[in-house]
Amino acid sequence: MADLMNNDVFLAFCTYATIVVLKMMFMAPLTGYYRMTRKAFSNWEDTAIRQKDPEKRKKMLQTHPDVERVRRCHQNDLENIVPFVVIGLLYALTGPDLSTALLHFRVFVGSRFIHTVSYVLALPQPSRGLSWVVGMITTFSMAYRVLTTALLL
Amino acid sequence: MADLMNNDVFLAFCTYATIVVLKMMFMAPLTGYYRMTRKAFSNWEDTAIRQKDPEKRKKMLQTHPDVERVRRCHQNDLENIVPFVVIGLLYALTGPDLSTALLHFRVFVGSRFIHTVSYVLALPQPSRGLSWVVGMITTFSMAYRVLTTALLL
Amino acid sequence: MADLMNNDVFLAFCTYATIVVLKMMFMAPLTGYYRMTRKAFSNWEDTAIRQKDPEKRKKMLQTHPDVERVRRCHQNDLENIVPFVVIGLLYALTGPDLSTALLHFRVFVGSRFIHTVSYVLALPQPSRGLSWVVGMITTFSMAYRVLTTALLL
Repeated sequence: MADLMNNDVFLAFCTYATIVVLKMMFMAPLTGYYRMTRKAFSNWEDTAIRQKDPEKRKKMLQTHPDVERVRRCHQNDLENIVPFVVIGLLYALTGPDLSTALLHFRVFVGSRFIHTVSYVLALPQPSRGLSWVVGMITTFSMAYRVLTTALLL
Repeated sequence: MADLMNNDVFLAFCTYATIVVLKMMFMAPLTGYYRMTRKAFSNWEDTAIRQKDPEKRKKMLQTHPDVERVRRCHQNDLENIVPFVVIGLLYALTGPDLSTALLHFRVFVGSRFIHTVSYVLALPQPSRGLSWVVGMITTFSMAYRVLTTALLL
Repeated sequence: MADLMNNDVFLAFCTYATIVVLKMMFMAPLTGYYRMTRKAFSNWEDTAIRQKDPEKRKKMLQTHPDVERVRRCHQNDLENIVPFVVIGLLYALTGPDLSTALLHFRVFVGSRFIHTVSYVLALPQPSRGLSWVVGMITTFSMAYRVLTTALLL
């Protein structure tokens, strides 16, 4: 175990995986913020927080474009960051050069931050599309190394 | 490898991670149960299971509040349990005290069971909100240790 | 670390986990393909890619059954492949026989490919249901071994 924690590539993976997972978790309070300010909730029990009038509470059971946008961004994080974490962990164990590994981790994490900003602020395409593609390519590149180093079918 | 399996913190992680992931997987048959009893399906081919009449089958292609509630609970599990598993694994490798690690794992897993019960039974707030916050704080606390022990940017 | 990469069960896990995660990632471009060909988008900025007329762009902000089907398939992958990866990793570390481990990995990965084909082509039930159940049972079987070998509550 000490082995893993003395390995620089593994330490770098720990750092970047934790940062990008924390970024993903941040989408939850952001959704909460939009739900509060846009008064758009999914659960009847949530509408009681600041409002007691049943009629007004019923109106708060609605969808709002801003809330849906943040939720789609959160979902896209799940669909992309989870594969990065899984393949990145196995990649770190194949013993790549530290500089190559750092390049992969930094490009991926950077691309996901740009993706979130592009999505939440609804920047014109291809900003969001490009940042998504860059993240995908980085993960594919690590998957390629895993499959060429550790293939046992 | 024997190393990892001789380490008590890692064994505890294996146990709690497996339990909480099994809990998350249980949401799928629960959704199926609600779909069956509420006759609310998403796919045309699923409506044929107990019904042959095309008119009645069309009516079963609907959403139902109970089904949507379980699905939101499942989604919330994905958004919270996946970060716990990733950060918890790295945390276990940083060599924390067994008692501190057990505290983190037990509080998180307990909070998610309370979260599921609060969500599915639609208990009044802040039961669900509090259990969600407790799980988030536990994961942040582990992430803090990972970043302070294993930082390599 | 060299330890892990000299272990055949772990190498097999790396291979099958990477393959099935790549399969999951493939759902994203497939969704994009259906969005383009069915002209069904969620974001206003995405409708500008091939169309400048605001009236026509508004009509493209719609849902389409084919797009929703692929998205449900992607979601089902997240709900099933993520548990497999987590429990499979811990299972690989418990030191099972190579042949038993390979059986688990192959059956799971095969079941998910069949699941995707059944879902996207809307094959009649129980093709999709059965492939889903087989994947669940495989993951449960690995979880059983993890909990009986590595239990520390």
